[in-house]
Amino acid sequence: MQKVLLAASLVATVAGSGVPAYANDDLQKMQQDAKHWVMPTGNYSNQRYSKLSQITSSNVGKLAPAWTFSTGVLRGHEGAPLVIGDVMYVHAPFPNTVFALDLNNDGKILWKYEPKQDPSVIPVMCCDTVNRGLSYADGKILLHQADTTLVALDAKTGAVVWSVKNGDPSKGETGTSAAMVFKDKVLVGISGGEFGVRGSVAAYNLKDGKKIWRGYSMGPDSDTLIDPEKTTSLGKPVGPDSGTNTWEGDQWKIGGGTTWGWYSYDPDLNLMYYGSGNPSTWNPTQRPGDNRWSMTIWARDVDNGKVKWVYQMTPHDEWDYDGINEMILAEMDVGGKKRKTLTHFDRNGFGYTLDRTNGELLVAEKFDPDVNWATKIDMDKSSPDYGKPVRVKKYSTEANGEDVNTKGVCPAALGSKDEQPAAYSPKTDLFYVPTNHVCMDYEPFRVSYTAGQPYVGATLSMYPPPGQTNMGNFIAWDGKTGKIVWSNKEQFSVWSGALATAGDVVFYGTLEGYLKAVDAKTGKELYKFKTPSGIIGNVMTYEHGGKQYVAVLSGVGGWAGIGLAAGLTKPTEGLGAVGGYAALSNYTALGGTLTVFALPNG
Amino acid sequence: MQKVLLAASLVATVAGSGVPAYANDDLQKMQQDAKHWVMPTGNYSNQRYSKLSQITSSNVGKLAPAWTFSTGVLRGHEGAPLVIGDVMYVHAPFPNTVFALDLNNDGKILWKYEPKQDPSVIPVMCCDTVNRGLSYADGKILLHQADTTLVALDAKTGAVVWSVKNGDPSKGETGTSAAMVFKDKVLVGISGGEFGVRGSVAAYNLKDGKKIWRGYSMGPDSDTLIDPEKTTSLGKPVGPDSGTNTWEGDQWKIGGGTTWGWYSYDPDLNLMYYGSGNPSTWNPTQRPGDNRWSMTIWARDVDNGKVKWVYQMTPHDEWDYDGINEMILAEMDVGGKKRKTLTHFDRNGFGYTLDRTNGELLVAEKFDPDVNWATKIDMDKSSPDYGKPVRVKKYSTEANGEDVNTKGVCPAALGSKDEQPAAYSPKTDLFYVPTNHVCMDYEPFRVSYTAGQPYVGATLSMYPPPGQTNMGNFIAWDGKTGKIVWSNKEQFSVWSGALATAGDVVFYGTLEGYLKAVDAKTGKELYKFKTPSGIIGNVMTYEHGGKQYVAVLSGVGGWAGIGLAAGLTKPTEGLGAVGGYAALSNYTALGGTLTVFALPNG
Repeated sequence: MQKVLLAASLVATVAGSGVPAYANDDLQKMQQDAKHWVMPTGNYSNQRYSKLSQITSSNVGKLAPAWTFSTGVLRGHEGAPLVIGDVMYVHAPFPNTVFALDLNNDGKILWKYEPKQDPSVIPVMCCDTVNRGLSYADGKILLHQADTTLVALDAKTGAVVWSVKNGDPSKGETGTSAAMVFKDKVLVGISGGEFGVRGSVAAYNLKDGKKIWRGYSMGPDSDTLIDPEKTTSLGKPVGPDSGTNTWEGDQWKIGGGTTWGWYSYDPDLNLMYYGSGNPSTWNPTQRPGDNRWSMTIWARDVDNGKVKWVYQMTPHDEWDYDGINEMILAEMDVGGKKRKTLTHFDRNGFGYTLDRTNGELLVAEKFDPDVNWATKIDMDKSSPDYGKPVRVKKYSTEANGEDVNTKGVCPAALGSKDEQPAAYSPKTDLFYVPTNHVCMDYEPFRVSYTAGQPYVGATLSMYPPPGQTNMGNFIAWDGKTGKIVWSNKEQFSVWSGALATAGDVVFYGTLEGYLKAVDAKTGKELYKFKTPSGIIGNVMTYEHGGKQYVAVLSGVGGWAGIGLAAGLTKPTEGLGAVGGYAALSNYTALGGTLTVFALPNG
Repeated sequence: MQKVLLAASLVATVAGSGVPAYANDDLQKMQQDAKHWVMPTGNYSNQRYSKLSQITSSNVGKLAPAWTFSTGVLRGHEGAPLVIGDVMYVHAPFPNTVFALDLNNDGKILWKYEPKQDPSVIPVMCCDTVNRGLSYADGKILLHQADTTLVALDAKTGAVVWSVKNGDPSKGETGTSAAMVFKDKVLVGISGGEFGVRGSVAAYNLKDGKKIWRGYSMGPDSDTLIDPEKTTSLGKPVGPDSGTNTWEGDQWKIGGGTTWGWYSYDPDLNLMYYGSGNPSTWNPTQRPGDNRWSMTIWARDVDNGKVKWVYQMTPHDEWDYDGINEMILAEMDVGGKKRKTLTHFDRNGFGYTLDRTNGELLVAEKFDPDVNWATKIDMDKSSPDYGKPVRVKKYSTEANGEDVNTKGVCPAALGSKDEQPAAYSPKTDLFYVPTNHVCMDYEPFRVSYTAGQPYVGATLSMYPPPGQTNMGNFIAWDGKTGKIVWSNKEQFSVWSGALATAGDVVFYGTLEGYLKAVDAKTGKELYKFKTPSGIIGNVMTYEHGGKQYVAVLSGVGGWAGIGLAAGLTKPTEGLGAVGGYAALSNYTALGGTLTVFALPNG
């Protein structure tokens, strides 16, 4: 561990010519040391769990802000800062300013990086100008800009080490997700499912930014890096041309399946896991077929991008149940058998647990009881529809047809959960899931594709489930059985990422702006504090000077907050969110502030 | 007192048709009840002193943020919120959004008012898009917008009750100061001394916004409302045409003397007090004469604007030592005699105490020992220069002439203190003064006047006094003797307003973003907290639910922070402040956040 600490302190103190010999495996080691928060997801497994335990369910009621920092940027602040040794790295939405802050000096600015980006990218971002944060490895800070530039900054100075362009905003391709570092590679996805972008994941060399591979979500096997024989879906080889043969003609070329979620990684299996997004357009009638491999959980070899297995959750989507939400890796006893698991809370309202070694489906249950578009996932292995949702015709926007308003579909397009990441505590063996509790009316219409122009094809309005007022719940979920253990109502969707800790305290933020701490076992609210603006950032924790801190970015926005963020007022604007979340303006205004909490001294 | 509390609670709770019978004297009564913070200056005397004493020098070290609120606006946040009963009223810089926040619900938004203003006013604002806050009276919230619109809002609903235009931004006239309510009148000044605006104070009827009087800083007696016989200067009648006869030709028409500071009021004398600003242009050679009544302390009858007395501090200004800083009223023993005093810390570096009944000059001493443009104020009543500064020729920008760079003048143009208001504690009988500790090089040049265009006529650069690094001090001042009692160094100018309390704790903010609490008697630092952005707002306090709170707006900007606020980088930009305060960007970024502090429960 001494080597790790040395490396960390070098980041903060070494200046000038002496380049420390960072090994690529430092990242893996540092994520074992809970002092740091070295990855946007906490660790490779995406658990967002910290072993720190100074803050407990007994003392968290005394928590208070220790210091704060404004990013100087308004609109939605997703993601979380990193902490490497004595330095905190904070990012902002467009223009994606990065700050290195000195933890020894209440966040004094060590350096600032302000990319020059063409603001014409802003109208191409469907759901606010968000950025989900930074990664760290090998003395570099990785930033994935709105304009799809992937840039590596010297962690000590902020100087640009290398920079590559991953996409083309003039075609609607934008960057919102955090780049992730697995081994010696930087993995980066793409946004733009509402612009007919064909999604892909690309791997760049951490050292120099050279592209190593790119795997598309649809297209010929040479594009998807799918092996017709070796790549399986629910245990069976997918066969040739699986990325094109469920599309009509060339539609796969503008097929969506974007890749803007949080990625996880299993070093033992050398597989990375992520989800692909909705097929384009949102009008299902325009794109017959299953639209593979949109809406799919992917397991790819990190070194070459080859696909080990896929599982399509929502074939032929009719509601924008984009499948990008994170995959959380754990070891759990499922049905009496120890499994290397992958758990995923999908926009479609089902919580899935799979065996991540082979993609075997173990559990698939609703994590919001009001989900009504499907009755269940068919778990009968002998059924031809095995693994598929059993749909309810009343809520089929395709069955009802174009220009017909399908009413009362639950969840709404933004899903029972969106990108806001869940956490998992190995101590309680529970998942802590920030959820949306929202239904919608959905009217598809015919749309034609023009590069760089919206390719949505549906008009939406959103609202809480009938007879209810809470638009969110924060739940504890048993991934082994697919059951809600406890559920706390929230007035609005919980659009903040959760944090689980060894102190048996779970943290999350609310759209009104509260940071909340709840008991990991019971969900009892133990503490809340109103931060300057609505929280859509993810809570993180670190230790500095022997003391545990908890930090979160506030800054309302994102899809749920797009009305406030972009100044929209027509209810159907913001893909239906503006009307649904109109009441948010009674609670909070735009902002961009980091709040760092600690227990008082003495 | 019961009547007062009733009125306050009505503000928070009465809705609909029942209009409470607000008496105009309620304001005067409510400012006696320390629960409220009913005026931007704390009270008519401008003391910024609170009788609240729950927070003491013994317990203030445990202070912590209780809740926070982002205004959704960046750039400089001057001024302070008001608290009337259960409601807090928060303002923002351009576009001058106003929020009514529910103190019973962590600042839930009761209403929001967002004026529509032409953004073309922004480039006409010399020193950031600041606004110094709101006033309250008779159930109305008074807002003085950037575009000089004075608007009265219903305090319960935010509905516009009346609205008048006080000036014309196309001529460089803008609004930055808080409107003040004295008796049944709303008093409002004007900004634009760098655009050749002729300053004035206007009084509007609180009930309907009808203009009652306007008194100019220069011009014919009918404009200034000066009576040649009755209006005195240092005890002598000023004589006819005093507002034109120290100007060449018609230059008084573009003469400056703007009126954007904090006003105070003595109800017994029925006099209001304020200062007029610099003469236009900043090139002294272009405007021979004393340039009366720029740079002057004024005592006007509130009912008709008639001038009781004037005192010009810096005749024929050569350095932009704008005289607008606040006048603090007190009762003090000066030279063994009890006096109704007026104390003023001028940009020129002298702290003045006068008898406010008649304008008699009692004390005039440097409140920064590095002030070098004058050796002293001539206090010899028999001298023809009685009351005038004794200048040092080396630092005379007129003597050195146009296009010559006069170096090393202290203070810099932004003065030993700018608008950031001082506080006075009747308990300690001391003034607490946020100061600038900055010198300058000043090069005047010839400029021609065009309406609405900058009319500055000087190039400046600013820096700390030679051999020193601190650009600010926070001092305690004995107004009776003109002596510094204690002085705390600050890295940057203290551009935040001070608050003195009966708990013998004095509060102020710093440009790096710290809220600081110091011992009123010794200056010892007892507490500090890094707020999200640099503080140029004024600290205030109130009581709610039996608990004392302290609140301050952070949001770096103003003249000192104009580089950050407006994204300027050339050192001489921002009238010389950009280079002087360049290091500020190492500490903070733009923001706009209210932080409310309290002692922890239990």
